[in-house]
Amino acid sequence: MTLSNHQFRLAARPIGLVKRTDFDYVAEPVRSPGENELLVKTLYLSLDPAMRGWMNEGKSYVPPVEIGEVMRAGGVGKVIESRHPKFQAGDHVSGLLGVQEYATLDGKGATKVDPSLAPLPVFLGTLGMPGMTAYFGLLDIGKPQPGDTVVVSGAAGAVGTVVGQIAKIKGCRVVGIAGGRQKCDYLIEQLGFDAAIDYKAEDVKQALRQHCPKGVNVYFDNVGGDILDIVLTQLARKARIVICGAISQYNNTTPVKGPSNYLSLLVNRASMTGMVVFDYADRYAEAGRDIAGWIKSGQLKTREDVVSGLETFPETLLKLFTGENFGKLVLKVAEA
Amino acid sequence: MTLSNHQFRLAARPIGLVKRTDFDYVAEPVRSPGENELLVKTLYLSLDPAMRGWMNEGKSYVPPVEIGEVMRAGGVGKVIESRHPKFQAGDHVSGLLGVQEYATLDGKGATKVDPSLAPLPVFLGTLGMPGMTAYFGLLDIGKPQPGDTVVVSGAAGAVGTVVGQIAKIKGCRVVGIAGGRQKCDYLIEQLGFDAAIDYKAEDVKQALRQHCPKGVNVYFDNVGGDILDIVLTQLARKARIVICGAISQYNNTTPVKGPSNYLSLLVNRASMTGMVVFDYADRYAEAGRDIAGWIKSGQLKTREDVVSGLETFPETLLKLFTGENFGKLVLKVAEA
Repeated sequence: MTLSNHQFRLAARPIGLVKRTDFDYVAEPVRSPGENELLVKTLYLSLDPAMRGWMNEGKSYVPPVEIGEVMRAGGVGKVIESRHPKFQAGDHVSGLLGVQEYATLDGKGATKVDPSLAPLPVFLGTLGMPGMTAYFGLLDIGKPQPGDTVVVSGAAGAVGTVVGQIAKIKGCRVVGIAGGRQKCDYLIEQLGFDAAIDYKAEDVKQALRQHCPKGVNVYFDNVGGDILDIVLTQLARKARIVICGAISQYNNTTPVKGPSNYLSLLVNRASMTGMVVFDYADRYAEAGRDIAGWIKSGQLKTREDVVSGLETFPETLLKLFTGENFGKLVLKVAEA
Repeated sequence: MTLSNHQFRLAARPIGLVKRTDFDYVAEPVRSPGENELLVKTLYLSLDPAMRGWMNEGKSYVPPVEIGEVMRAGGVGKVIESRHPKFQAGDHVSGLLGVQEYATLDGKGATKVDPSLAPLPVFLGTLGMPGMTAYFGLLDIGKPQPGDTVVVSGAAGAVGTVVGQIAKIKGCRVVGIAGGRQKCDYLIEQLGFDAAIDYKAEDVKQALRQHCPKGVNVYFDNVGGDILDIVLTQLARKARIVICGAISQYNNTTPVKGPSNYLSLLVNRASMTGMVVFDYADRYAEAGRDIAGWIKSGQLKTREDVVSGLETFPETLLKLFTGENFGKLVLKVAEA
């Protein structure tokens, strides 16, 4: 058997929004696994805002994807051949599969997942990196107390939906910021948020004043830019801002907009702290148990936005930056 | 006796740098103290960057000085008449005397100082608010560990000199940022800083790279603006930024410059936290004991920049913003 492996390889460092010509879509024969390796067939790929940063040159929390390399992406797939003692054909695994149909992994990069626990895309969202990010960012950095007002931006996204629901579980008042009435209604009616602000239609500052009369105790920021600047004006004393991302800035061709109102940190004795989920790797299991329990009890709902077809990758990725996606964006690559 | 009390009262909210016409220089008869009040003759007034903020309208960590009010200022003076049981004529006290020759205080606003411990201006600097700010900002927020690299801006000022010297006492590598070779030489030769960067003459980024080869663990920021943005690019993992002030921005007539490189907080899992010294009032005595001990043992040197003459107040205050002052800026109002 010689399987053909279609792949997206980075062809150019994007300027502004990603376009199809920033990638080469190519095929190469699948490489059989060597000793201690396993061959995985990609079923679903996770599309995340952070991928845009990985395409830029320069030092960050992970090395950039090099020109010519297969584009980095997390995914879940099925082991079709294993020469690693811990895995066997038929196992489902998650790991950095890359934007391709087949991945040859060493054992370290793969984690078994149990498809009887949840649909596979959930392992890329609420039970995957976005869920872990929400869990540790909110609980370890944001440190919400019962009765606190927690505001989250990108609230209808993969991280935001989980942040808000965990904050509710912890007894907080939760206000989401999202784009469009449909998303805002979903946050309130389906996920139990106390309020949601449609930043495309509302005056965000005015709405924050209304929905956070005692100020904002915890702000979980996924978007940066103007919204971060506005939330800074509404902080309560000793507020904690979690800097998880800045999706509004990732496609800038001009310098990042710094938060002009950062001196509100001084006035309010508040803090702004960055987090990277990989630091919590040795506690993923703990978070996974909590999150799976909340899903099972119905306290935490998941939502995936599944688009089919590896070949749609560049355009599907764009949905993250145009605000079109709703829930965890997943690319379906193969049926099983 | 009818003493005449010369005063500077706020006449207008300054636009940009303070000018003489923003104040009315007037005289009124001294009011005799009522029951539980004391009358204090001003000897020295503390001139601080924060005063510029107090002149602006709008909510901050203290109410603004109202138009027509005596300009707020801390000072030390001598009690000349007391109807308060805790004070008697001849006592030296510190408190918010205001920019005037005499102040009538209630007992709560006054703290006795012992002039045999240190020259009176030191109670406005290293043993006063700037010293307390340095002590709690560095130790409680910055949390320096032995071997850490600590960078402080405004390093030759009232707060910066104390931050750097306490960091040395705590076993850190200390790099100061100041304006001019004379100040930089003083930091290294007199105060024992490991390095000093003259931001007026040097490439600050290049110099930080050279002097902080392992990155910056603690940054104590007094200046904001471009220097904050540059230091953000040189953070070590888990760095702590203490936001104490932003003197470069206080006279802006345009919006404050936000730190464009704030996403370095994310990449480096770093934090930026604001502090206001008044929160530590119940621990001032603890800090005062430590600082007085370090002064006595010669580990901590103080430097005051004393200008004489109440009537010079507007121009003397400007020295803070033009970078002319060197050490704690104090206005001498009367001999004794």
